[in-house]
Amino acid sequence: MSAAQGKTGRRPGESGAREAILAAATAAFAEAGYDRATIRGIATAAGVDPALVLHYFGSKKDLFEAALELPVSPRQIFERGVVAGPDQLGAVIVRTFLEAWEPPETRVRLMAMLRSAMTNDTAMAMIRDLLVREVFGPITQTLGVPDAPLRATLVGSQFVGLAIIRYIGRLEPLASASIDDLVSAIGPTVQRYLTGELGGGTQGG
Amino acid sequence: MSAAQGKTGRRPGESGAREAILAAATAAFAEAGYDRATIRGIATAAGVDPALVLHYFGSKKDLFEAALELPVSPRQIFERGVVAGPDQLGAVIVRTFLEAWEPPETRVRLMAMLRSAMTNDTAMAMIRDLLVREVFGPITQTLGVPDAPLRATLVGSQFVGLAIIRYIGRLEPLASASIDDLVSAIGPTVQRYLTGELGGGTQGG
Repeated sequence: MSAAQGKTGRRPGESGAREAILAAATAAFAEAGYDRATIRGIATAAGVDPALVLHYFGSKKDLFEAALELPVSPRQIFERGVVAGPDQLGAVIVRTFLEAWEPPETRVRLMAMLRSAMTNDTAMAMIRDLLVREVFGPITQTLGVPDAPLRATLVGSQFVGLAIIRYIGRLEPLASASIDDLVSAIGPTVQRYLTGELGGGTQGG
Repeated sequence: MSAAQGKTGRRPGESGAREAILAAATAAFAEAGYDRATIRGIATAAGVDPALVLHYFGSKKDLFEAALELPVSPRQIFERGVVAGPDQLGAVIVRTFLEAWEPPETRVRLMAMLRSAMTNDTAMAMIRDLLVREVFGPITQTLGVPDAPLRATLVGSQFVGLAIIRYIGRLEPLASASIDDLVSAIGPTVQRYLTGELGGGTQGG
């Protein structure tokens, strides 16, 4: 990570500029997506010189990676579910996901990721790598279920769709539903994708 | 719909240009999204004058509406499920959805819709209207279940996420999974969202 420059030898005042750049970058990626967000525009919004953006973050790709830093990593979410017990896995994962993304200041990061990934292959590839590293691995290692990669992508499909309908599309009534209601509605889906029977439609009722 | 101009008084040769414009528009919306697709770029790709695009379709918004015409309407998908019987609803809906979007020439339309909706409020509003008209209404009228709008948005969240992971993110192994496997895996989710118990986590296993 070339963001290391911003982390070592930090002087007073530097972290303010770095944070301002990150906030401006997150807002730009959330609103315009990866392709249309520019280093120049982000620098202007942060009130700094474009050279300083590159000094701290090296490239647009590295800046994107720093901006989409997750409030709770998928690995942490998953591990919280495992700790809660095998029957609670789905409910805990849905609750932790929603609680992490509900605050507006973290939600903007989720929107940055989703909007960017939808229109830019680099952004999508970075998110794919993140999922494989943070989600697929832990599921395979911890649950000992067959078809762990398929299960992980099924869970991913439900969460991606949930985030889009709730936070970007704001489709009612899902957009305003309480976290409790969504845990009740979607928890069993995630539970089944992770630990249930997937083949043969044996749960078709 | 101002596309009416293109439908009435059609002379030989006109339909060719109209189809070329539609195909170019779909490709542009799929690749660049609504905001970045331009009438001029679409006209160039179709080999026609920009004025002809406006003659046939009136505006970029109308062109978008024509380009995202669905291979099978959500209402038709839903009605097929109802005809198959209440227990088969989820499986039939998942199969019909996937079979409709699997061919590359229709898939590009789904991608146009999703990419555009993610970055443009007009496109998202049009899709929201489509869903309310085509999906929420039929579900409420036909199934007679409580919470029909929440159920419809839950189903929407699963399908939006499925389409993004499978067709845009191409995350394996979901991207290459057979339709049969996905019907087995996701059918029960849709079945439960439409007809099952949503509250209290009573299906948490």
